[in-house]
Amino acid sequence: MNKVLIINGPNLNLLGKREPDIYGKESFDSLLSMLRRQHSDHQIDYFQSNHEGEIVDQLQQSDGSYKGIILNPAAYTHTSVAIADAIAAIETPVIEVHISNPMARESFRHKSFVAPYVIGSISGFGLKSYELALSHLLSL
Amino acid sequence: MNKVLIINGPNLNLLGKREPDIYGKESFDSLLSMLRRQHSDHQIDYFQSNHEGEIVDQLQQSDGSYKGIILNPAAYTHTSVAIADAIAAIETPVIEVHISNPMARESFRHKSFVAPYVIGSISGFGLKSYELALSHLLSL
Amino acid sequence: MNKVLIINGPNLNLLGKREPDIYGKESFDSLLSMLRRQHSDHQIDYFQSNHEGEIVDQLQQSDGSYKGIILNPAAYTHTSVAIADAIAAIETPVIEVHISNPMARESFRHKSFVAPYVIGSISGFGLKSYELALSHLLSL
Amino acid sequence: MNKVLIINGPNLNLLGKREPDIYGKESFDSLLSMLRRQHSDHQIDYFQSNHEGEIVDQLQQSDGSYKGIILNPAAYTHTSVAIADAIAAIETPVIEVHISNPMARESFRHKSFVAPYVIGSISGFGLKSYELALSHLLSL
Amino acid sequence: MNKVLIINGPNLNLLGKREPDIYGKESFDSLLSMLRRQHSDHQIDYFQSNHEGEIVDQLQQSDGSYKGIILNPAAYTHTSVAIADAIAAIETPVIEVHISNPMARESFRHKSFVAPYVIGSISGFGLKSYELALSHLLSL
Amino acid sequence: MNKVLIINGPNLNLLGKREPDIYGKESFDSLLSMLRRQHSDHQIDYFQSNHEGEIVDQLQQSDGSYKGIILNPAAYTHTSVAIADAIAAIETPVIEVHISNPMARESFRHKSFVAPYVIGSISGFGLKSYELALSHLLSL
Amino acid sequence: MNKVLIINGPNLNLLGKREPDIYGKESFDSLLSMLRRQHSDHQIDYFQSNHEGEIVDQLQQSDGSYKGIILNPAAYTHTSVAIADAIAAIETPVIEVHISNPMARESFRHKSFVAPYVIGSISGFGLKSYELALSHLLSL
Amino acid sequence: MNKVLIINGPNLNLLGKREPDIYGKESFDSLLSMLRRQHSDHQIDYFQSNHEGEIVDQLQQSDGSYKGIILNPAAYTHTSVAIADAIAAIETPVIEVHISNPMARESFRHKSFVAPYVIGSISGFGLKSYELALSHLLSL
Amino acid sequence: MNKVLIINGPNLNLLGKREPDIYGKESFDSLLSMLRRQHSDHQIDYFQSNHEGEIVDQLQQSDGSYKGIILNPAAYTHTSVAIADAIAAIETPVIEVHISNPMARESFRHKSFVAPYVIGSISGFGLKSYELALSHLLSL
Amino acid sequence: MNKVLIINGPNLNLLGKREPDIYGKESFDSLLSMLRRQHSDHQIDYFQSNHEGEIVDQLQQSDGSYKGIILNPAAYTHTSVAIADAIAAIETPVIEVHISNPMARESFRHKSFVAPYVIGSISGFGLKSYELALSHLLSL
Amino acid sequence: MNKVLIINGPNLNLLGKREPDIYGKESFDSLLSMLRRQHSDHQIDYFQSNHEGEIVDQLQQSDGSYKGIILNPAAYTHTSVAIADAIAAIETPVIEVHISNPMARESFRHKSFVAPYVIGSISGFGLKSYELALSHLLSL
Amino acid sequence: MNKVLIINGPNLNLLGKREPDIYGKESFDSLLSMLRRQHSDHQIDYFQSNHEGEIVDQLQQSDGSYKGIILNPAAYTHTSVAIADAIAAIETPVIEVHISNPMARESFRHKSFVAPYVIGSISGFGLKSYELALSHLLSL
Repeated sequence: MNKVLIINGPNLNLLGKREPDIYGKESFDSLLSMLRRQHSDHQIDYFQSNHEGEIVDQLQQSDGSYKGIILNPAAYTHTSVAIADAIAAIETPVIEVHISNPMARESFRHKSFVAPYVIGSISGFGLKSYELALSHLLSL
Repeated sequence: MNKVLIINGPNLNLLGKREPDIYGKESFDSLLSMLRRQHSDHQIDYFQSNHEGEIVDQLQQSDGSYKGIILNPAAYTHTSVAIADAIAAIETPVIEVHISNPMARESFRHKSFVAPYVIGSISGFGLKSYELALSHLLSL
Repeated sequence: MNKVLIINGPNLNLLGKREPDIYGKESFDSLLSMLRRQHSDHQIDYFQSNHEGEIVDQLQQSDGSYKGIILNPAAYTHTSVAIADAIAAIETPVIEVHISNPMARESFRHKSFVAPYVIGSISGFGLKSYELALSHLLSL
Repeated sequence: MNKVLIINGPNLNLLGKREPDIYGKESFDSLLSMLRRQHSDHQIDYFQSNHEGEIVDQLQQSDGSYKGIILNPAAYTHTSVAIADAIAAIETPVIEVHISNPMARESFRHKSFVAPYVIGSISGFGLKSYELALSHLLSL
Repeated sequence: MNKVLIINGPNLNLLGKREPDIYGKESFDSLLSMLRRQHSDHQIDYFQSNHEGEIVDQLQQSDGSYKGIILNPAAYTHTSVAIADAIAAIETPVIEVHISNPMARESFRHKSFVAPYVIGSISGFGLKSYELALSHLLSL
Repeated sequence: MNKVLIINGPNLNLLGKREPDIYGKESFDSLLSMLRRQHSDHQIDYFQSNHEGEIVDQLQQSDGSYKGIILNPAAYTHTSVAIADAIAAIETPVIEVHISNPMARESFRHKSFVAPYVIGSISGFGLKSYELALSHLLSL
Repeated sequence: MNKVLIINGPNLNLLGKREPDIYGKESFDSLLSMLRRQHSDHQIDYFQSNHEGEIVDQLQQSDGSYKGIILNPAAYTHTSVAIADAIAAIETPVIEVHISNPMARESFRHKSFVAPYVIGSISGFGLKSYELALSHLLSL
Repeated sequence: MNKVLIINGPNLNLLGKREPDIYGKESFDSLLSMLRRQHSDHQIDYFQSNHEGEIVDQLQQSDGSYKGIILNPAAYTHTSVAIADAIAAIETPVIEVHISNPMARESFRHKSFVAPYVIGSISGFGLKSYELALSHLLSL
Repeated sequence: MNKVLIINGPNLNLLGKREPDIYGKESFDSLLSMLRRQHSDHQIDYFQSNHEGEIVDQLQQSDGSYKGIILNPAAYTHTSVAIADAIAAIETPVIEVHISNPMARESFRHKSFVAPYVIGSISGFGLKSYELALSHLLSL
Repeated sequence: MNKVLIINGPNLNLLGKREPDIYGKESFDSLLSMLRRQHSDHQIDYFQSNHEGEIVDQLQQSDGSYKGIILNPAAYTHTSVAIADAIAAIETPVIEVHISNPMARESFRHKSFVAPYVIGSISGFGLKSYELALSHLLSL
Repeated sequence: MNKVLIINGPNLNLLGKREPDIYGKESFDSLLSMLRRQHSDHQIDYFQSNHEGEIVDQLQQSDGSYKGIILNPAAYTHTSVAIADAIAAIETPVIEVHISNPMARESFRHKSFVAPYVIGSISGFGLKSYELALSHLLSL
Repeated sequence: MNKVLIINGPNLNLLGKREPDIYGKESFDSLLSMLRRQHSDHQIDYFQSNHEGEIVDQLQQSDGSYKGIILNPAAYTHTSVAIADAIAAIETPVIEVHISNPMARESFRHKSFVAPYVIGSISGFGLKSYELALSHLLSL
């Protein structure tokens, strides 16, 4: 099973455009190209949605087909029990990543509903958070 | 009006597979078949969605067509004001059901946004929670 | 073992007289007569007390003699650890019932000490909450 | 750029039918017709959804095409970080409107996730809240 | 109906002995004798109990037989929903009295469950709190 | 010293006009006339102000000139540390009165800053709260 | 009745001088002149005070003489129950306005005591908040 | 005065049967026999009740007759102000004991109303908690 | 600019008389005389008021005329956003002083609204708190 | 293994000097001498430190060498997760003792981080708390 | 006794280097030299440590040898009960100083454990906070 | 600068022995050897301490000598403002690592004081958390 899935939550499709002082100026596409080049022996699938329900659907449908899932739930980190329950319900390992460090932002971003159910969390390294998560998944 | 609607919220499509120590091993389909056999004089419709918005849509569209609605909002019980508002907005009676007892689980599951708007709540009886709700609806 | 016990907590002896807009106008006696008529093959015992300690005593003494206990702890739902501990201590299954839905009333009624220890909770259906609980117990 | 967008959140499609003591008896369509007649030199687009994700999508897609957006997030006001993040991410000015005054209702409606990111908030004037917001946008 | 009932809650039978710096040195009996002498045209009944349930019983049984009830719930002021519910359930007016001012003591004594259901509250005047309550009841 | 002072806080000058379902229809003047007639051997002074600072001034200036002060701080009950400090600073006994029972209203009205410093509190008896306070003061 | 009253709370007399990055550089006088010119068929009275009590006095005295009152309670928004009670006590409609959006500032500014009693709230539009409020009042 | 009293609160009559993983398998009778054998020069009285009021009664009636009282209030530890007040009201020293350590259980068991009034607290040593308390009392 | 202003808040005019165990026995006048003697090359103005609004007025009117302001807001420290806003609005440096240490008193005195806006805070040194503040201001 | 270790936390080296109304007048040395005399068949080691880290070190290093450890963490009871983790990490049984009863003191002393990990807690008996703990350890 | 001790808590050895926008650019050494020059008739000792325990040790060992202690507990202000207990345990007067004003920073810096035990607190004056504290100590 | 420093907080010297179900069975030494072998072109220094102050010292002394610091503050994560301040004070980048996921454990472990000051956080990957942190540091 040499496939890995990256799921990005709401507003991450605007990466590179949205609030560059928090999220940086690089778009996610350029990161994705780079990761695919670096790991050409693996298939890296990508899914982005602004819909809580679609992320739940995707997590369920991906179960069993991937070595692991890298999930940046963005705003849903702090409000979605449904996504947390989906992670708990599937068997594929999920890693939580964040570009910035939610703990250094508004207090409503300090709560993560998904953290108790993932195999690990990586936050604050910018887009490198994804690289670190990927390197861990591929080493499993 | 001899129709009843059952609405299941996020991750309940995994019933029987997901965390069987909490939710049991029976799939929802087998329950549904049994209920339909037992109550062949009624039409029992079924809707499941992982999307908060689709549950709101469904509640609205069903208004006036059913004797009552049995709703297990699952994770949205604890986070959705939108579903609660939809229940308040329609006239069809809604019963809240839960398979396990949220009060015996994590503290963020103790809050129910929908409880103040339903005609009654049944929780903790496993899949029998649905049977009890149905028997009540049919007796109205 | 064809016996079932119904325990009612404080002020429920006033049912039918007390705040009829919340609790309805039917007295508990008429419900009890009806339930006994409907289930003449079972013995339905009834106990009401305004005393927390007597409810604890009753739960303990009933252990082993009943198929199950239907308990409406009323005000003690929200304040009694002793009753909750008694339910945890005995082996007879207990169902929590409420006539109105505590979640739709004052915030101090949102907490249930007994909920984590019962096999299920039914609330908001008026006196029909008892019927539903009984039908479940008899089906066990 | 003589276009303005009005976005209505969950259950506002029921306006005029739902809880008329809170939301009034006028439907949103009649308001919209009136506004379009009054401001025939502007194009007033309208979008309603019960889906949090669709509102996020709409906000993103509308960025750059409108003079401003009038948003009534309804229930999502109190639960959606994703919509708040979308407003922060786009450059088009957004005005928050409410028909009733959330501060005069249940305490869970006192929190607005979107308020810190909008250029202004108008609440409590019934459907006139939209008129005020529109007159402000057109005066920019 | 020229009867009045005074109900004293837990530990008030020790009045005059218990913590005299808080509750004073006078026993309740001497107060009662004085009140009966002063108001010889009325029957002043007295009930004291350390049992929450007995106070609930007494309130229920007294309903309809008294012009009014003067209740010092003592410790149960802060912990008993059952007594509060009993006051709400009966029609006889109840006045809440306290010898000391609970608001000037530990913070767990600042909460009164009964206050929302009584016709008035008098606290802090020592045993004179009862006199004031009685003079009000007799003036009705 | 046969003088007593009654101080009324903000908006109590509107008594009889303002929200009669909460505060009754009687004006304070008619009560005052009646109290003065009943207790013609005492001078009953009256002071009303909507200004927190003027109530502090009045409490200070009255110290030593009155047998006691009857104070209804109204809204300032819940927000004024300055008035509470003034009561603590003077030697004249102060009684806190309320027309309605703050404990039965919004939660921000449950806090009384002045309660720990007065000799007693009387609330909920309508304008009779003042009569009871006066009868106590005159009996000292 | 073609009169409207604008009441400004504490420190708003410094407008144009005080913290211009929050409140802007325009003085209130220039706004007032402009509003009076635009609406020469109406009398627009103006009152500013740093005193909570004077604002209460003014609200009471204005009752019945104005079509409506536009109130920016400034700091008293967050601390004054007395002003909130005054608004509840009078019959003249009151609109709450804020120059900046309190929800985007310190958390102690998120609470508005007056919001539940006004007919509507407008905040965040700078001095245009007053214009919007006025245009609404005049349209009544 | 060579008498000591042991008071056990609700559900402790089930000791040895109830939840043996928390409370152990030994019944209280066997402990009591052993303690009486070991300390034959003292009279060790025993009282158990599931009633809060009876424990208050017993504490009051025992005052002056015992060298000390060993009290395991069980569930009432966390909910009874009445028992705490009784301990404060009597002069006989009281020791609080617990079989398990409430601090290691649910958070609602972390609060002890009686702790501030006892001469000492012993918890977590199983039935040995009583032995330690007794050895301390006899050494006084 | 050799002028300094001292502003004292509510009840500080009673200094020397009010609660001497907390505030000491010295009157403020004697301190003021001493400070003026010691610093005869400076003009030390003094203002005391029990009115929140007058303190706001004074702060505004003094702006630009003094080297600095020494402010003991007393009770308003804990309740006045208006005074805090006035300090933020003016340019003259303000020092917060307290005679006793609010942190060692009731918890509602632990909050200081003005602290974030002053150049420094001095508390607990009795009347010497003013001396320290003055010596700092004069050294600027 | 006939060795026992007593560890005292910060400021307990001042025992007998520090706040004798709370901690008594006896020094710890005299207690230690007495305990060693009474239990001459055991080696009673003693360690006191004001350093959180040294207490963690000592707990780790003592593991396996003692029958048990008697620990009075003093101030660190309420603030040290590190000491609690050390107790959880070692196998030697630890008993928590306190001279006074933290539950009867300031609320920040009500929290014990170590309580969930010790085999039992003894508090409030003065220096006798240590004797009781020792007698229990030696009886194991 | 002409000796004074200054104790600086964690990270204050970096003064002048660390976050100069909060703590200024001057090193503590240059302040110390200046203070020693200004007060050559006194011995000014200095102690800095990043260790909570060493600060407790130092406070204890200094007791009786100094006219007073100036303590900037830095981070330990907000987390150390041990240092607070040490201050309470010794007789030498301690003054709490802070360079910046903790009340104007993150909310976890608003709590001071030491404040209730010191003779006074000075904060926000930069390094001048120490000068003010010293001038007070020397004036005793 | 080809040096990296790993700092481990309290009780991590017991790794492999302590609670293996939470922390795993591997000792830290074996991980360290492996990391050094894998990255023989870098010097990987290691420091472990149970002392908060020593970790602060070490962070300060390492500033400027290392490419970066990998810090597992263990228990001090949740209680140490001093370590957080040290990280903020130095310029060397610090990465926070945790073996288990604190968010999935007791609620007092959900708070991280250091998170706002580190460049990134990695938790839950077991000892692999260190590997990921190291690979990131070396890639800088």
